[in-house]
Amino acid sequence: ADWPFEIPDIFKRKELSYNYNYDLATSKSLMIIRMIFKWRGSLWEAVYKELIVWICAYTLVSLIYRFALTGTQKDLFERFGEYCDARMGYLPLNFVLGFFCNIIIRRWLKLYTSLGNIDNIALFVSAYVRGKDDRARQIRRNIIRYSFNSSSPKTLIFRYCVLSQCLVFRDIHVGVRRRFPTLEAIAQAGIMLPHELEKFNDIKSRYQKYWVSFNWALELLNVAKSEKSIDGDNARNAIAQEICKFRSALTTVSMYDWVPIPLMYPQLVNMAVHTYFFLCVFTRQFFISADAHNKTEVDLYIPFMTIIEFIFYMGWLKVAMELLNPFGEDADDFDCNLLIDRNLAIGLTSVDDAYDQLPEVKPDVFVG
Amino acid sequence: ADWPFEIPDIFKRKELSYNYNYDLATSKSLMIIRMIFKWRGSLWEAVYKELIVWICAYTLVSLIYRFALTGTQKDLFERFGEYCDARMGYLPLNFVLGFFCNIIIRRWLKLYTSLGNIDNIALFVSAYVRGKDDRARQIRRNIIRYSFNSSSPKTLIFRYCVLSQCLVFRDIHVGVRRRFPTLEAIAQAGIMLPHELEKFNDIKSRYQKYWVSFNWALELLNVAKSEKSIDGDNARNAIAQEICKFRSALTTVSMYDWVPIPLMYPQLVNMAVHTYFFLCVFTRQFFISADAHNKTEVDLYIPFMTIIEFIFYMGWLKVAMELLNPFGEDADDFDCNLLIDRNLAIGLTSVDDAYDQLPEVKPDVFVG
Amino acid sequence: ADWPFEIPDIFKRKELSYNYNYDLATSKSLMIIRMIFKWRGSLWEAVYKELIVWICAYTLVSLIYRFALTGTQKDLFERFGEYCDARMGYLPLNFVLGFFCNIIIRRWLKLYTSLGNIDNIALFVSAYVRGKDDRARQIRRNIIRYSFNSSSPKTLIFRYCVLSQCLVFRDIHVGVRRRFPTLEAIAQAGIMLPHELEKFNDIKSRYQKYWVSFNWALELLNVAKSEKSIDGDNARNAIAQEICKFRSALTTVSMYDWVPIPLMYPQLVNMAVHTYFFLCVFTRQFFISADAHNKTEVDLYIPFMTIIEFIFYMGWLKVAMELLNPFGEDADDFDCNLLIDRNLAIGLTSVDDAYDQLPEVKPDVFVG
Amino acid sequence: ADWPFEIPDIFKRKELSYNYNYDLATSKSLMIIRMIFKWRGSLWEAVYKELIVWICAYTLVSLIYRFALTGTQKDLFERFGEYCDARMGYLPLNFVLGFFCNIIIRRWLKLYTSLGNIDNIALFVSAYVRGKDDRARQIRRNIIRYSFNSSSPKTLIFRYCVLSQCLVFRDIHVGVRRRFPTLEAIAQAGIMLPHELEKFNDIKSRYQKYWVSFNWALELLNVAKSEKSIDGDNARNAIAQEICKFRSALTTVSMYDWVPIPLMYPQLVNMAVHTYFFLCVFTRQFFISADAHNKTEVDLYIPFMTIIEFIFYMGWLKVAMELLNPFGEDADDFDCNLLIDRNLAIGLTSVDDAYDQLPEVKPDVFVG
Amino acid sequence: ADWPFEIPDIFKRKELSYNYNYDLATSKSLMIIRMIFKWRGSLWEAVYKELIVWICAYTLVSLIYRFALTGTQKDLFERFGEYCDARMGYLPLNFVLGFFCNIIIRRWLKLYTSLGNIDNIALFVSAYVRGKDDRARQIRRNIIRYSFNSSSPKTLIFRYCVLSQCLVFRDIHVGVRRRFPTLEAIAQAGIMLPHELEKFNDIKSRYQKYWVSFNWALELLNVAKSEKSIDGDNARNAIAQEICKFRSALTTVSMYDWVPIPLMYPQLVNMAVHTYFFLCVFTRQFFISADAHNKTEVDLYIPFMTIIEFIFYMGWLKVAMELLNPFGEDADDFDCNLLIDRNLAIGLTSVDDAYDQLPEVKPDVFVG
Repeated sequence: ADWPFEIPDIFKRKELSYNYNYDLATSKSLMIIRMIFKWRGSLWEAVYKELIVWICAYTLVSLIYRFALTGTQKDLFERFGEYCDARMGYLPLNFVLGFFCNIIIRRWLKLYTSLGNIDNIALFVSAYVRGKDDRARQIRRNIIRYSFNSSSPKTLIFRYCVLSQCLVFRDIHVGVRRRFPTLEAIAQAGIMLPHELEKFNDIKSRYQKYWVSFNWALELLNVAKSEKSIDGDNARNAIAQEICKFRSALTTVSMYDWVPIPLMYPQLVNMAVHTYFFLCVFTRQFFISADAHNKTEVDLYIPFMTIIEFIFYMGWLKVAMELLNPFGEDADDFDCNLLIDRNLAIGLTSVDDAYDQLPEVKPDVFVG
Repeated sequence: ADWPFEIPDIFKRKELSYNYNYDLATSKSLMIIRMIFKWRGSLWEAVYKELIVWICAYTLVSLIYRFALTGTQKDLFERFGEYCDARMGYLPLNFVLGFFCNIIIRRWLKLYTSLGNIDNIALFVSAYVRGKDDRARQIRRNIIRYSFNSSSPKTLIFRYCVLSQCLVFRDIHVGVRRRFPTLEAIAQAGIMLPHELEKFNDIKSRYQKYWVSFNWALELLNVAKSEKSIDGDNARNAIAQEICKFRSALTTVSMYDWVPIPLMYPQLVNMAVHTYFFLCVFTRQFFISADAHNKTEVDLYIPFMTIIEFIFYMGWLKVAMELLNPFGEDADDFDCNLLIDRNLAIGLTSVDDAYDQLPEVKPDVFVG
Repeated sequence: ADWPFEIPDIFKRKELSYNYNYDLATSKSLMIIRMIFKWRGSLWEAVYKELIVWICAYTLVSLIYRFALTGTQKDLFERFGEYCDARMGYLPLNFVLGFFCNIIIRRWLKLYTSLGNIDNIALFVSAYVRGKDDRARQIRRNIIRYSFNSSSPKTLIFRYCVLSQCLVFRDIHVGVRRRFPTLEAIAQAGIMLPHELEKFNDIKSRYQKYWVSFNWALELLNVAKSEKSIDGDNARNAIAQEICKFRSALTTVSMYDWVPIPLMYPQLVNMAVHTYFFLCVFTRQFFISADAHNKTEVDLYIPFMTIIEFIFYMGWLKVAMELLNPFGEDADDFDCNLLIDRNLAIGLTSVDDAYDQLPEVKPDVFVG
Repeated sequence: ADWPFEIPDIFKRKELSYNYNYDLATSKSLMIIRMIFKWRGSLWEAVYKELIVWICAYTLVSLIYRFALTGTQKDLFERFGEYCDARMGYLPLNFVLGFFCNIIIRRWLKLYTSLGNIDNIALFVSAYVRGKDDRARQIRRNIIRYSFNSSSPKTLIFRYCVLSQCLVFRDIHVGVRRRFPTLEAIAQAGIMLPHELEKFNDIKSRYQKYWVSFNWALELLNVAKSEKSIDGDNARNAIAQEICKFRSALTTVSMYDWVPIPLMYPQLVNMAVHTYFFLCVFTRQFFISADAHNKTEVDLYIPFMTIIEFIFYMGWLKVAMELLNPFGEDADDFDCNLLIDRNLAIGLTSVDDAYDQLPEVKPDVFVG
Repeated sequence: ADWPFEIPDIFKRKELSYNYNYDLATSKSLMIIRMIFKWRGSLWEAVYKELIVWICAYTLVSLIYRFALTGTQKDLFERFGEYCDARMGYLPLNFVLGFFCNIIIRRWLKLYTSLGNIDNIALFVSAYVRGKDDRARQIRRNIIRYSFNSSSPKTLIFRYCVLSQCLVFRDIHVGVRRRFPTLEAIAQAGIMLPHELEKFNDIKSRYQKYWVSFNWALELLNVAKSEKSIDGDNARNAIAQEICKFRSALTTVSMYDWVPIPLMYPQLVNMAVHTYFFLCVFTRQFFISADAHNKTEVDLYIPFMTIIEFIFYMGWLKVAMELLNPFGEDADDFDCNLLIDRNLAIGLTSVDDAYDQLPEVKPDVFVG
């Protein structure tokens, strides 16, 4: 059950983010230190560009303040800094980031458990769809690897479910959209056959037609039942229920896309963080005039405390922004292309290769 | 499956809020900056009116303080400002907004997953309701697009489910109410037929009659079963269960409407925010008397720090207030009219146009 | 399906709290201002008594301080005020109210979704219990409105479910208890018949007998099945499952009543808020001695900042206390009497009046 | 269905904590004041011992400071107090208690909804297990109250489920363990018969044998089915599913016991609170040296502000600690003994006494 | 049903963390004090290494400051310390740890309820798979403990489910991976037989093959059904559904491993805590120059307040880090090896030893 065509490099899986699970399983201090300094998918990678911009701005203002301003202007600047600094608390970044990040992570946890595993469908189809394949198996013995065998209802059902997943993911996931820019691309990849594409296009609707291939899959169950290749009403029902659950999970995913967290909330959080650090460019200067009211204790030239603060809050914001929409191509985003490939491959393997390959029943080694 | 009549402009879908999902999928700094400055459905659109009112009030008080007051009055005013300013912390806006917004968003997330998708019913009806449509299909071939074909039990079941959704949404959603001000309007739109409306009105009840059309739908299943157009008891049950789930989701939605968050809580939050900024009009003046105890470091005329604070907290409040009742016509509110149209259209397409249009079973391109 | 007797005024539905859903659907600033000043079920109604008591105490202390104390006593009082004021932060009301209110609201959201809607049972009974009613319908035609028709298994099943709901609600809800102080009162209202009450009393148990009428309902299903008025095993099962779900929801409700949030937690929160404002009577005086260390900036006589704080925190506490037990007769509490009436009325209407009233199947107006 | 033996006093239900639900249903100010001063299961009962210890320590240190120390020592002590006091904020008790308490309460809410109500099993067994009892009923008429009738499969199934609950609760609940210290004690109480105990002991396993009696219960269903006392496959299945749900709930409970919140977390919270108040013994003294830098505003001898703080934080901690493991014998802990008795009594009553006691079907009073 | 081979010491269960449940069931003050000082799996064990490193660093800096620096350098150092100390609040550790820990604990609670108990499968298999074992039982009587009896479909189904669990846990749990480094090790332990391993390896797939043994298990159900050892379609379905639920739980577990919380978030939290305490090495020195602006109130040499703070925050971080990935070998991590052994042992005991060992039905002691 391999892809019939080469997958061009552009569609290859993106380099994975560092998966720290195994390293952190048993918590050791050194491992944690090492984790802090990972780059790929890290805090540092997320904020370094913003940090550079900020440092440049800070330096520019610093140079102007120290060398270009006259005494009176310096005094005004210092008093302006004092005024703002005393009021930085008007923007409670910790509160708004804490609560925002909390709600975003919960949404994200919910979302990735709805992405849709085909395994239950595969299990039930493989176990319950039978009779026909006695014939199919005979054919299989004669014409080895002749692709006709994959035209049995079993594999079609999978293909149709995966097809729906493709259609949904195309509309919400940047990577899947790039891989399948048109329906023709799906057909070309073999997930849809040309005559199916035709049928699909024949159906006119103003709304997305995710449901079409599910219709086909259930219709196929009816065909299989009428050809007696499904053993009984219960079995048909069990498969139909699993297909329905799969469909519902996909609907959840597309609902999450259709109704995002209102624009205002991420806007609010971003506005707060950006405004805060914009103001810091002025208020976090080292005030050095001898008679300044707010003279800094020591002139370090580099505002490293503010830099730490910048990394901290900007990083927290980036965590939230990345989880807000996990269907992009960031290091930690869901790899939906992989999921589609996996579902297709496991479905096909499970119903074709592994079909009826039950190991002989032999005694095991446990004393009964 | 199109609307038989033109939809007047007034019922047209409202302009959509900017859906940032696609832009933010892969987080890039510039995109975020651009997002901050969107207008439609934005923070800015939400708070600008309040902000203008506040600025006017502030300016008025400022002018009076600077030009109209005598020295003693100025002193009193300044001491009053000092007194209040030191006690602004009595209203912990960050706490109350953080927790309030948290609970509101969770309620909202729960709510929009209960709005009711008809897809599962459509799938099962299309797959399980059969026999009769062999006849229906014959008729269909002869009398193309003769509307009688939609009078098969299949489409009626949908129509009845959508009808219930209409009835519920009319009572909770401003837009749907505006579109269907009376039951006659529903009948006129074709979701209910005149003789059905009569039957509906015949049933007297002091309570809402959302259940009536579900009764009809289940009754219809019985008819279909007795006419042998449903293949078996399991199939009937599966459809009935899906109808029941759809109904339960609608009940959840109307329960949310029936028992809102107690009035006291939003009142409390609104009172706090409005009182806070009302006080700010006085306490955030630039105190300029030479001998004022609380002389401001610098006189900037424009209280931009307070303006930022105003946008921040008023925006946070607006996020909560908008999510508190998403059944209005704000930019981010649920578009229930769209959902009704979609459910009807998909249901009808799926059982009529797409019925029995299973593509021919052909070999696919995956090597088995 | 009306109540056979007049409902005395005392049992009438309490005046509803202002339902702000419709007004706030589309958020407009003026509407929000208006909402703030609603009285019924409001913040103001909840705190005004406490506020009056507090203001009296404050005034009393103020008068004593200003007019009755000697210079030394004044000094001592002022230093005592200063001591306490500096330590008011020992009671972090914002934290404890934020977290407490959060957990209470989640419990409340859970609770009101478990109150028990009879609609699913009604739907299934109406659809699945058949044969017998062909006879019942004939009788109905002849003897219109003769109450015997409601003695069919169908309505009994409802009556028994509603009866259980009554029994549970009597034990947890003040209003329902007031309406049905004894089992005889339930019998008098017609929810239980006299001979049923006898049967009920015959069963001896140390524990609540909520289950008895569910037993009857299921028993009735058996009777109906043996009389062939239920079409098949699946149908019986489906109804039994719905009755079971209804019962489980009622159990959840009574469990919430049996195991409340431990007394300590609301005690803690109430103690904190009350102690805080008791101390405020002393610490929030205007200290006016010329040489007082903590001389107030300005003497306003009315401590309006503390009054605002009082309304805010006491209101927040009231939100939590009202949601802690929503089974009382506060403005926002669940109206369980209404729910019982509604369940009974809808159940009876749905199985009797609406039974078999399927509108004639006619073509609809959508082009297929 | 009473206990055949007297329940010794030692096993009697513990005195219940004050159930405030009814009193607080309609929130009245006086009722709240009264609630604050309840003792049983209260905040005060929870903290008074710790408070006494703390006050003694404080007094001792106070006496030493005031009377035993020399001037230099006093100065050192005062500066030490100042040093610590300025750093008490290093332990943010409000944060850690707020979040800890939040997670503990959610775990507790989850836990008590999993304790296992037998009602659903009772309902289904009573309704679905039939034939045999026609015989049993005849026997019952003749030999009144001869205990043999409880040996019908019906009651056995309950007994076996309750038996499992006993076995689980013995391992996690102090009170149940005290009541049933050995398996023999269970047998003696009649929940297990001697020959069953023998069978039970015959099964050797390194792991807990909670599953054994469930196996028996399901086996009994098979017996009942083969003896035709269960009417059909669906009925058997429905009962088996309910037994399975009951079992899963018990597993959840024992999993919660097997995998507690890691020791570190409660340790951290306890350490923080205890350390904080240990330091308070020193830092919250009234510093009275005339030239002390941190001279207290007023010398009140009794540090009542710190005592209020102590009650507040220690009480909050106690709320969390009590909910952390609700299987003890604190005032608010779950009364598992009561639950076992109730399950057994309701189960037996429901299947024996109430069996087939359906009231005669008579017309009701509602006009149809 | 014991392991056929000795389990080498290296695979023995790790020493358990102190399970405080029983001790804390009834909350007593002394018990809490004792709990605080437990070592195994404790706060102290978690932070002592980091604490020692920190104290060394602090001492080193302290010595340099006190003895190596000149007056000017001291002054610079003190002003540097003052500068940083005033800005330590830029890193709000309490906020970020509170929210982070909150989300991690919720994920962990979800995770350990998904680990997969085999009990439901065991119950249903034992109850529903029958006929065949009449033969098996005969054989059993003759050939006692001949291992062939465990080759009945019943035990195979368990073995296959446990096998899948092994395969999943190997990929996510350090301890299970160590015990079964290769598939051969699983075969050697008897969970997989050699000819099954061969079949398993025959199936080629780019993805993990967790599904293979589930396929076998369902296939076996078909075999059992065709050999009439399962009584009916419903029974087959019930077992298949339970196997499916078991599989879904395993999928959840492996999804949690596949998509961890994005690296950035734990990185952020660790960075913040480590940076904070790195800065503390400088800012929390006792500043002792007579003319230092920030002269410490008292010179205690040991910064015990900071040490308490260190233990507190580092401990809180450790709680989160340990729960972040509970599949390691820390004291509180899930013991997946134990779970596999338990599932296998209980499954085998339940279907073989306990099979058909229903105690004789005798009258019980409750008066009916």
